[in-house]
Amino acid sequence: MQAGSEVTKPVFPENTWYVACTPDEIEGKPLGRVVCGISLVLFKTAEGQVAALEDFCPHRGAPLSLGTVQDGLIVCGYHGMRMNPDGQCAGMVGQQVERFKKGIRSFPAVERHGYVWIWPGERTLADPEKIPDLHWARSPDWAFGGGLFNIRCDYRLLIDNLMDLTHEAYVHSSSIGQPEIEETAPETARSGDCVTVSRFMRDIPPPPFWQDALKGNNIEHDIPCDRWQICRFTPPGSVMIDVGVAHAGKGGLDAPENHRASGIVVDLITPETETSCWYFWGMARNFNVKDGALTDRIRDSQQKIFTEDLEMLESQQRRLLENPGRRLMKLNIDQGGVHARKILDELIVAETDA
Amino acid sequence: MQAGSEVTKPVFPENTWYVACTPDEIEGKPLGRVVCGISLVLFKTAEGQVAALEDFCPHRGAPLSLGTVQDGLIVCGYHGMRMNPDGQCAGMVGQQVERFKKGIRSFPAVERHGYVWIWPGERTLADPEKIPDLHWARSPDWAFGGGLFNIRCDYRLLIDNLMDLTHEAYVHSSSIGQPEIEETAPETARSGDCVTVSRFMRDIPPPPFWQDALKGNNIEHDIPCDRWQICRFTPPGSVMIDVGVAHAGKGGLDAPENHRASGIVVDLITPETETSCWYFWGMARNFNVKDGALTDRIRDSQQKIFTEDLEMLESQQRRLLENPGRRLMKLNIDQGGVHARKILDELIVAETDA
Amino acid sequence: MQAGSEVTKPVFPENTWYVACTPDEIEGKPLGRVVCGISLVLFKTAEGQVAALEDFCPHRGAPLSLGTVQDGLIVCGYHGMRMNPDGQCAGMVGQQVERFKKGIRSFPAVERHGYVWIWPGERTLADPEKIPDLHWARSPDWAFGGGLFNIRCDYRLLIDNLMDLTHEAYVHSSSIGQPEIEETAPETARSGDCVTVSRFMRDIPPPPFWQDALKGNNIEHDIPCDRWQICRFTPPGSVMIDVGVAHAGKGGLDAPENHRASGIVVDLITPETETSCWYFWGMARNFNVKDGALTDRIRDSQQKIFTEDLEMLESQQRRLLENPGRRLMKLNIDQGGVHARKILDELIVAETDA
Repeated sequence: MQAGSEVTKPVFPENTWYVACTPDEIEGKPLGRVVCGISLVLFKTAEGQVAALEDFCPHRGAPLSLGTVQDGLIVCGYHGMRMNPDGQCAGMVGQQVERFKKGIRSFPAVERHGYVWIWPGERTLADPEKIPDLHWARSPDWAFGGGLFNIRCDYRLLIDNLMDLTHEAYVHSSSIGQPEIEETAPETARSGDCVTVSRFMRDIPPPPFWQDALKGNNIEHDIPCDRWQICRFTPPGSVMIDVGVAHAGKGGLDAPENHRASGIVVDLITPETETSCWYFWGMARNFNVKDGALTDRIRDSQQKIFTEDLEMLESQQRRLLENPGRRLMKLNIDQGGVHARKILDELIVAETDA
Repeated sequence: MQAGSEVTKPVFPENTWYVACTPDEIEGKPLGRVVCGISLVLFKTAEGQVAALEDFCPHRGAPLSLGTVQDGLIVCGYHGMRMNPDGQCAGMVGQQVERFKKGIRSFPAVERHGYVWIWPGERTLADPEKIPDLHWARSPDWAFGGGLFNIRCDYRLLIDNLMDLTHEAYVHSSSIGQPEIEETAPETARSGDCVTVSRFMRDIPPPPFWQDALKGNNIEHDIPCDRWQICRFTPPGSVMIDVGVAHAGKGGLDAPENHRASGIVVDLITPETETSCWYFWGMARNFNVKDGALTDRIRDSQQKIFTEDLEMLESQQRRLLENPGRRLMKLNIDQGGVHARKILDELIVAETDA
Repeated sequence: MQAGSEVTKPVFPENTWYVACTPDEIEGKPLGRVVCGISLVLFKTAEGQVAALEDFCPHRGAPLSLGTVQDGLIVCGYHGMRMNPDGQCAGMVGQQVERFKKGIRSFPAVERHGYVWIWPGERTLADPEKIPDLHWARSPDWAFGGGLFNIRCDYRLLIDNLMDLTHEAYVHSSSIGQPEIEETAPETARSGDCVTVSRFMRDIPPPPFWQDALKGNNIEHDIPCDRWQICRFTPPGSVMIDVGVAHAGKGGLDAPENHRASGIVVDLITPETETSCWYFWGMARNFNVKDGALTDRIRDSQQKIFTEDLEMLESQQRRLLENPGRRLMKLNIDQGGVHARKILDELIVAETDA
């Protein structure tokens, strides 16, 4: 199922939920997207059902994603074959195509928490209850803004990136970076299939992004603060990061809202191929949640910051491809990524054995 | 001879005439063009002779197409080697290059019916009488306008496209498409190495393109019409389509000119590589032939319509490459393309056996 | 060490000095550049020392060239690893990375004669005394202007180009070309590892470039001249060409400055990969050397002329790749390139045997 690999071992598990797109991307029209090496067409029927099929019309191989959605079916834009959400031929003007039982492959697809999730592996194992609970997405106490990047790197390089925020001191030095990050050792812990990397910095100046956030919460922004970053990885590609600052000595993580600006950096990563990925990023916050202009401002700022990672990640990927088999360092700051990769490997091995 | 293929079987016959370019493309200068996987230089001598050589100077391998044409010879633009139309060295200042007898490969080339035809295979078999007779190209009763596309798809996908006009109802719904096309079953017949697919629609509204054509013939355009499409494939890549509308009940194909707008859609397809082709398209018409502005208008309209096929064909090619060996459907509407491919396969097998 | 080649024999020697960049390219910031198939980072410390390392941070494989230079060290732009010019880890905030003894590969690097030279092979053999002496670069009697091209061709095609100036009559017909070049046979001689190709033309009209140069020397430009071109190849990629014109009968090469315009065309060629190269070009002159505007004018003119070679060289490369193993002609005008390639082959064989 992996694209471009004949003999190498898989790099992503298949029996798991991945974010494929956001609901607005398939509003009124189908979307072609490669997920885990599979060319998919994603669409939403009038009744709001989401569906994922191979993006391959069984008639002549045209991509269904160039077609339209009508009456809950996807209609091929080449000669009009109609496919139902199960991947069966549902009709074609002047033809008896219902007799073709083979059809095309369909994939379990569910809309939940503001995303469309698909299951690329064995469909009988697809349990929607395994979709992670993004609690902030269904609570009026939280506001959310985000976006999507396509990055030409192995999805695991992006997980490494998010599990070691030391890079903020270098890549994002003008916004969220500050020397105190690298000066403060993180703590890494694995619990089941989850990995947590925590870093607490006390009585430090808030960097520009967080000064803006404090202003956004209409509280003092130029006084010493406590700052925290708690990265939580769950497979296959979720990294949720509790981030925030609170006026120094007011309780940190637990400070009251009038002394704090905080939120969750949302990172949902889906392999596109073995060397490229989809990055659904965003920020959920639980302060001043009615302020839509603040949501927009934070999203724009985050987009600018995350764009700084792209060149680095894509260049790193090229260097690694040029140097196959070369061993990298595993410092204490790398332990989050190291554990995450170990968990992914365990899942892949378990699938391969099964 | 096929580009990019070591072990796969050939996909196009070689002992046949292909259109390589139009005469105006080689007026006063050489043209580099890949045909059937061969990098060619095409040129026209002062005496009007057309010639096709490997685009490879035997001196240092520079492309001759970057050179000039002088005194009936092509002169390499790097160091001045002069090659005659037979592929022999004809001279070089300060050198005795005539002694190099090996030269480069030349290909039979003939200008006829407004095109330059080349024969990529065994030259002793190249009989100009086998060039198809494009009768409209040499008759004052016909007008012609056309153009050229390079499409990143197997030339056979374009033949399929033209032998199943059902796609007009989807790809060209705003110009020549109409629901009556898919509602009307076509008839397919093979006769020798030719395949004909015919579709007749009676008493239907003419679609926008044909309304314009009726107007171009200065006759009523908003009344019910009979419409016909008769696609004729001859190998390797010719699809001539008799198309037209006539006021309903006035004789259809045989209606007099004052009740009819009709013509021939001209499609001459030449493989560039195994997954790309040259598409020489156009329309010949036998009404109001002196109206040059009408010729231009029809060509512009046809260019716009045919451009709608490009994304579909190139996407279809990518999907097929991603899914090697996957079987496609063969419905009644596909029979034209199926027969055409069978004829091409027979020709290729006959060549391979010979 | 060659990029993109598993089983083919090397095409460039490694135990030799190559120009990697000019000093201004690494002023205050590191430079990433591929030389002889190796991704290098080049940088200059505050003390003016030049250094060349693999462009690969041993921490996580990020390119060091995206980093910065601080206190004589290169600092990775991803997580702050500091590398010294020997390729050893020199420090990282909060880490004890000095204990990693392996480091990355460093390459001997020397700044001399206005260029940064690197030695891609066995470092114990790297003797700076083997860097060619560009005498004009350290003399007040000479002025120099030049530039850099990246060309998608084997560096040896560019050497061929420069060792056979017959091409000027075709590629550069409007500036330095004239029919007398191809009408005059060159003389080729090998002496040790150097090859010289000489061509003397007497009592001819100076072409436009040289008319401008005569004007630049404030002497008569529209009278018959003697012209000379003496190309000197030394491996791996240096072609120095004595060029000039003198009023006819005034002594040619040895004419006094008030009857002459002359100089050295400087060509320093470095393989990037097996099918691409870096071309450091320029012109050194020993007349009117204080005239900076003249230096600029000559450089602009030379840039325009050398740009005319690019399409030819890159097209020639593509044709040669399409026709592997095909033999080319070796005329008398090609002897310079033929000898240069023989010398390179001898050096490569000697390295391989050692």
